[in-house]
Amino acid sequence: MNIHFNPIKCLFRQLPAQMVSAHCDLPCGVYDPAQARIEALSVFAIATKMADSSDTDYRTRAIIIKEQRAELVKHHLWVLWTDYFKPQHLEQHPNLHDLFWRATKQAGETKHLHDAATAQKLLDLIDEIAEIFAATKAAAK
Amino acid sequence: MNIHFNPIKCLFRQLPAQMVSAHCDLPCGVYDPAQARIEALSVFAIATKMADSSDTDYRTRAIIIKEQRAELVKHHLWVLWTDYFKPQHLEQHPNLHDLFWRATKQAGETKHLHDAATAQKLLDLIDEIAEIFAATKAAAK
Amino acid sequence: MNIHFNPIKCLFRQLPAQMVSAHCDLPCGVYDPAQARIEALSVFAIATKMADSSDTDYRTRAIIIKEQRAELVKHHLWVLWTDYFKPQHLEQHPNLHDLFWRATKQAGETKHLHDAATAQKLLDLIDEIAEIFAATKAAAK
Amino acid sequence: MNIHFNPIKCLFRQLPAQMVSAHCDLPCGVYDPAQARIEALSVFAIATKMADSSDTDYRTRAIIIKEQRAELVKHHLWVLWTDYFKPQHLEQHPNLHDLFWRATKQAGETKHLHDAATAQKLLDLIDEIAEIFAATKAAAK
Amino acid sequence: MNIHFNPIKCLFRQLPAQMVSAHCDLPCGVYDPAQARIEALSVFAIATKMADSSDTDYRTRAIIIKEQRAELVKHHLWVLWTDYFKPQHLEQHPNLHDLFWRATKQAGETKHLHDAATAQKLLDLIDEIAEIFAATKAAAK
Amino acid sequence: MNIHFNPIKCLFRQLPAQMVSAHCDLPCGVYDPAQARIEALSVFAIATKMADSSDTDYRTRAIIIKEQRAELVKHHLWVLWTDYFKPQHLEQHPNLHDLFWRATKQAGETKHLHDAATAQKLLDLIDEIAEIFAATKAAAK
Repeated sequence: MNIHFNPIKCLFRQLPAQMVSAHCDLPCGVYDPAQARIEALSVFAIATKMADSSDTDYRTRAIIIKEQRAELVKHHLWVLWTDYFKPQHLEQHPNLHDLFWRATKQAGETKHLHDAATAQKLLDLIDEIAEIFAATKAAAK
Repeated sequence: MNIHFNPIKCLFRQLPAQMVSAHCDLPCGVYDPAQARIEALSVFAIATKMADSSDTDYRTRAIIIKEQRAELVKHHLWVLWTDYFKPQHLEQHPNLHDLFWRATKQAGETKHLHDAATAQKLLDLIDEIAEIFAATKAAAK
Repeated sequence: MNIHFNPIKCLFRQLPAQMVSAHCDLPCGVYDPAQARIEALSVFAIATKMADSSDTDYRTRAIIIKEQRAELVKHHLWVLWTDYFKPQHLEQHPNLHDLFWRATKQAGETKHLHDAATAQKLLDLIDEIAEIFAATKAAAK
Repeated sequence: MNIHFNPIKCLFRQLPAQMVSAHCDLPCGVYDPAQARIEALSVFAIATKMADSSDTDYRTRAIIIKEQRAELVKHHLWVLWTDYFKPQHLEQHPNLHDLFWRATKQAGETKHLHDAATAQKLLDLIDEIAEIFAATKAAAK
Repeated sequence: MNIHFNPIKCLFRQLPAQMVSAHCDLPCGVYDPAQARIEALSVFAIATKMADSSDTDYRTRAIIIKEQRAELVKHHLWVLWTDYFKPQHLEQHPNLHDLFWRATKQAGETKHLHDAATAQKLLDLIDEIAEIFAATKAAAK
Repeated sequence: MNIHFNPIKCLFRQLPAQMVSAHCDLPCGVYDPAQARIEALSVFAIATKMADSSDTDYRTRAIIIKEQRAELVKHHLWVLWTDYFKPQHLEQHPNLHDLFWRATKQAGETKHLHDAATAQKLLDLIDEIAEIFAATKAAAK
């Protein structure tokens, strides 16, 4: 992710209240790939910890929480795909559907597989999405 | 909020995987005040839109969604308060408990009251929390 | 809606238990467009009832429930799109991504608009998805 | 399981839209035993897969998902019992209460026990409920 | 409800840890009609407040919360009916099924109707259930 | 816990409907520490049963349910802290914030650790909260 770009900053710093609400057509609220990314970071952290432990009870808890976090990643990505992105965005970014499909499938992979590399791939795909998101935000200004 | 500071950036850019997981003691995952802030921005946007509409059905939907978003703000703040902050943080920031209490109560206020000013007060309190969070992150390096 | 077509019938009638379980790779469970369709029928029924009532409290309850049902439609469709469909299905049905995008966006429309025609469009899109689903099931035999 | 019987078919095929909505008195929405049955099929599929694996992490995920699916079975059956069925149905089908009690208890059993036979018993009880449901639908015409 | 009898007290005061766990066969946990009753008290309180207000936005929020609380009443009662009560309890209390059916249907009524009398009927039915629950607890000692 | 004191009894026995609703300012509903306590009793019972079993599948289910119950304890305590307690209560009980912080952290501990002693500490902290709650109720009369 272009981490020098901060969607929240742009959103809140540079847009007056009217514009903030203007991009929020009920029931969508405010969109931000950071929501999916934070949950994916949690999946990554859990997978990293699982590599260091063979305790069955500990792994059970790690898997329970990883399932939940990975599901939240899927949910946040699905909402972004369906509710935020519009046909004109698709024209400018024709790989949008495929990218979200691969990202949400990768979130599923982080449930199946318990290693950090699988979670890193998810983070990379979310970063690709975040860049497209940032580009559409910049274009909207 | 000091928006030039980006917790995700610090978290992901400057910490190796071990340290990422090090601060994540299951079942907490990764912490970030941005989660509460994004939902609070949604509450703010909804309140702003409600000011422009007297349509009963529209207001019903706005209130339904605002209730959900404000509840998510409360949840994310509660988790941050209980799971992330440690006694040493409290020593350095003795107003921590009171700040979280007022912030979560203010989230409740944004359910009662439907105006943007009430939501702005919530955003300001979350920014105070985000600054303390950033300070503890900086101190941990 | 094309009510002569019935995916569950195909699923139950033509597949023995082994095959039902065979297509379930954890954590997906069993897939069936009927889940989304039943919730969409509920959205349709609620919209039909709303047309007959101007009672504010009644409409409030109808909108609350319709929001929930429409959200469930979105969820069931998202899961089907991400977890059930595979790249080979996409080759055979290149409109898959666009169809799911329009269907989930239409589910969002049934939250915005309270009329039966908007819900009927959602049912029609789910029927299109159900036909593709049935075709992939038939091809898998 | 009696897979020749299909309630959704009855529902979709034989009732016009008006009647579909007519039996929906808010907040119930549309009723269909297929919702419980699809989740029970998932429980059955998971139990079948568990019989083939002794991998601890895999079994953990299977149990997590089976708990969720079995809980959804219970929920869908409870809603059907309380919201759909009326006193006149009980007169015609005096075993209704006992049948739902045994079915929801059996759903609990599929959490305790991880074998396909326990899940099959659940499917059989849901089929008994589906037949009564279909009979009441037919009688309503 | 026989309010001199306190299930929690008996449960915790008079039973050693072994017996506490003995009656808890996973996944049931600890049972107590108080869970349903507390939510029903909330429904009652909300209905009482609704009688005093004609403000549309206020009523919207009251209805949203009442729907949630009434749903929680249903859920707690369903769990109690399916998971706690056993066949021998049914022999001693043959009206058990009917009582739970009427109580959960009454919880649904408190969604339809917004008056305190409807909520009071729900509380009375929960009290009947609580008395039977207390009798089975006493018999188990 | 002063088990001779029963919040529900006081609430329902000694307060007329007006006062019941009077202390319920939407969206709070009715407050009662018993909600957190019942879930904590479940955590305690599960931990006690885990001590007696080394079956991996059984422990997996126990951990899944214990995670859920402990999370419910946290939620009920957070709601009580934010929504019920007012500044004047804090003046009379200056340890309120610290007590809730330790109690919710202890609920987290019951996820990490699987022994009954850890769950007992949680119950003791909830009892301290219940006594303060009872004192504020008595003072309100």
